[in-house]
Amino acid sequence: MMRLPFYLDCDTGIDDAMALAYLLASERVDLLGVGSVSGNISAAVGAANTLDLLALAGRDDIPVAVGAHDFLAHEFHGGATHVHGENGIGGVVLPHAQREMEKESAAEMIVRLAHAHPGELRIIAIGPLTNLALALRLDADLAALVHDVTIMGGAALVPGNVTRVAEANIHNDPEAAAEVLAADWFVTMVPLDATMESTIEADDRDVLEASNHPVARAIGAMLDTYFDFYVRFFGRRTSALHDPLAAAIAVGDLELGEAPVVHVEVDTTEGPGRGQTICELRYRFLGHPEQEGAHCRVVLSVVEPFTPKLMAAMLRL
Amino acid sequence: MMRLPFYLDCDTGIDDAMALAYLLASERVDLLGVGSVSGNISAAVGAANTLDLLALAGRDDIPVAVGAHDFLAHEFHGGATHVHGENGIGGVVLPHAQREMEKESAAEMIVRLAHAHPGELRIIAIGPLTNLALALRLDADLAALVHDVTIMGGAALVPGNVTRVAEANIHNDPEAAAEVLAADWFVTMVPLDATMESTIEADDRDVLEASNHPVARAIGAMLDTYFDFYVRFFGRRTSALHDPLAAAIAVGDLELGEAPVVHVEVDTTEGPGRGQTICELRYRFLGHPEQEGAHCRVVLSVVEPFTPKLMAAMLRL
Repeated sequence: MMRLPFYLDCDTGIDDAMALAYLLASERVDLLGVGSVSGNISAAVGAANTLDLLALAGRDDIPVAVGAHDFLAHEFHGGATHVHGENGIGGVVLPHAQREMEKESAAEMIVRLAHAHPGELRIIAIGPLTNLALALRLDADLAALVHDVTIMGGAALVPGNVTRVAEANIHNDPEAAAEVLAADWFVTMVPLDATMESTIEADDRDVLEASNHPVARAIGAMLDTYFDFYVRFFGRRTSALHDPLAAAIAVGDLELGEAPVVHVEVDTTEGPGRGQTICELRYRFLGHPEQEGAHCRVVLSVVEPFTPKLMAAMLRL
Repeated sequence: MMRLPFYLDCDTGIDDAMALAYLLASERVDLLGVGSVSGNISAAVGAANTLDLLALAGRDDIPVAVGAHDFLAHEFHGGATHVHGENGIGGVVLPHAQREMEKESAAEMIVRLAHAHPGELRIIAIGPLTNLALALRLDADLAALVHDVTIMGGAALVPGNVTRVAEANIHNDPEAAAEVLAADWFVTMVPLDATMESTIEADDRDVLEASNHPVARAIGAMLDTYFDFYVRFFGRRTSALHDPLAAAIAVGDLELGEAPVVHVEVDTTEGPGRGQTICELRYRFLGHPEQEGAHCRVVLSVVEPFTPKLMAAMLRL
């Protein structure tokens, strides 16, 4: 099977770690580079976590670039340590990677990879969209060079997570999200509508922790912190699979359910709707007829259960 | 059965006509007064339509007051004639009522009725909430005097109708809606989540048109115009039962499905979320635990089909 060129933008992050593991395990993915962005944790710590995870997976060949520390319109204020732990990966201490980050920024890496693989580069963005917006500003030709973009972010017809209507990645940098969704490339958005329906359970965590695979074992340990947070939403020790679901969809591994291509606008006001992804879904009773100029596919559901595929991937590394 | 005192605020309107018919047919309702507000049509035309419908139903005893022509923060600009027809009731010409409107405004009527029936008055508001906001401004004691308020309006977890996220009644006067939802009375909100699931079909319309009941026959004729509009959303000749569903819920005639009491905020920005009802539904997986200070019940669904009850009511008049 031919591997396809991918770039991953992330804020590692417990579910980012799972997404990274999923991509590393895939035979369809040639992961050409990873950029970090502030979100769950600072861009610097997220990059270090990514480097350490890659070392643990024996993949020191994949370059890691540090991305934006601050968001387009406001400063980064410490991330979601109550969700992901103080170090972003649930307090788990990984062996320290022996190599350095790239000299280029994450935005520069995106532009470089897009030019090196014209028409072929797949971008997966599972943190705030700051680096992608900066890359678009760096190179006016970028959107046309990229094959497509898959983002974990937003909430269409379900509540948000950081506010009543906004999801964390988009809410962290709504201005960046607006620029990314306005750019002339095809975006697949994987919002909370889909990701909150995909969960990893306590039994799965036990399997990871008991395994001989170092990455799987580390993720199992991280999930303990993630479960502590999610119990207040789900009422049981579980977690949603936000980022890995987006990664799997980007790879083409999951059959999509309701996933219309529609106009999406980001609320960039300072009002209570700030950071909401406002999707044109009013014509759903008609099966979402074509919307002229729309280039964002909003994945409201997937058909098959994702967790078995993710578990198999993590236990394959 | 003891009749309970009700006030109806409406912008008649085809579905307003159905709601009025439903209330007139109910043995539990003592309809003490009706106020009009601009929305589907101007407050003046809406009041005239209401007066004519009451005459047709032989209920010239129910006073009708004209309410606000303009909204709190902006002017009325002609209403939804593309939905409800040029005269608000699908072009149907009713016999002209022989009596006059009340001298008091709708807001004054609300205050008067609340004082006349302290703790007992039920308010049903199925248009923009301008009159209710004005009544709250007229009398600081009003909220405490009123039994409860039921509104047709908003969209919680489904798309809006006039914008991607906003429903028409709230979007027409978001500032009024914000004041009404902030006031210290109990509000039951019946949003599009529930009303778009309750429809009246072409076969039902045929039954109304063929009946001997003048109000039912008039409503059957009106529905032809309403169906013309709704075909673009539903793909068939049907219409949602927005206003009558709220009326039936206010009367207590329907078992509610998912209907949590939650905090609701109205987006009053000028951004793309303007007029959205932002509901705190993030804890739905836990069954919506109590939210301190919340006093708005959001009806996301009803249990039983409503249309048979509505049909029976309209054919009883």
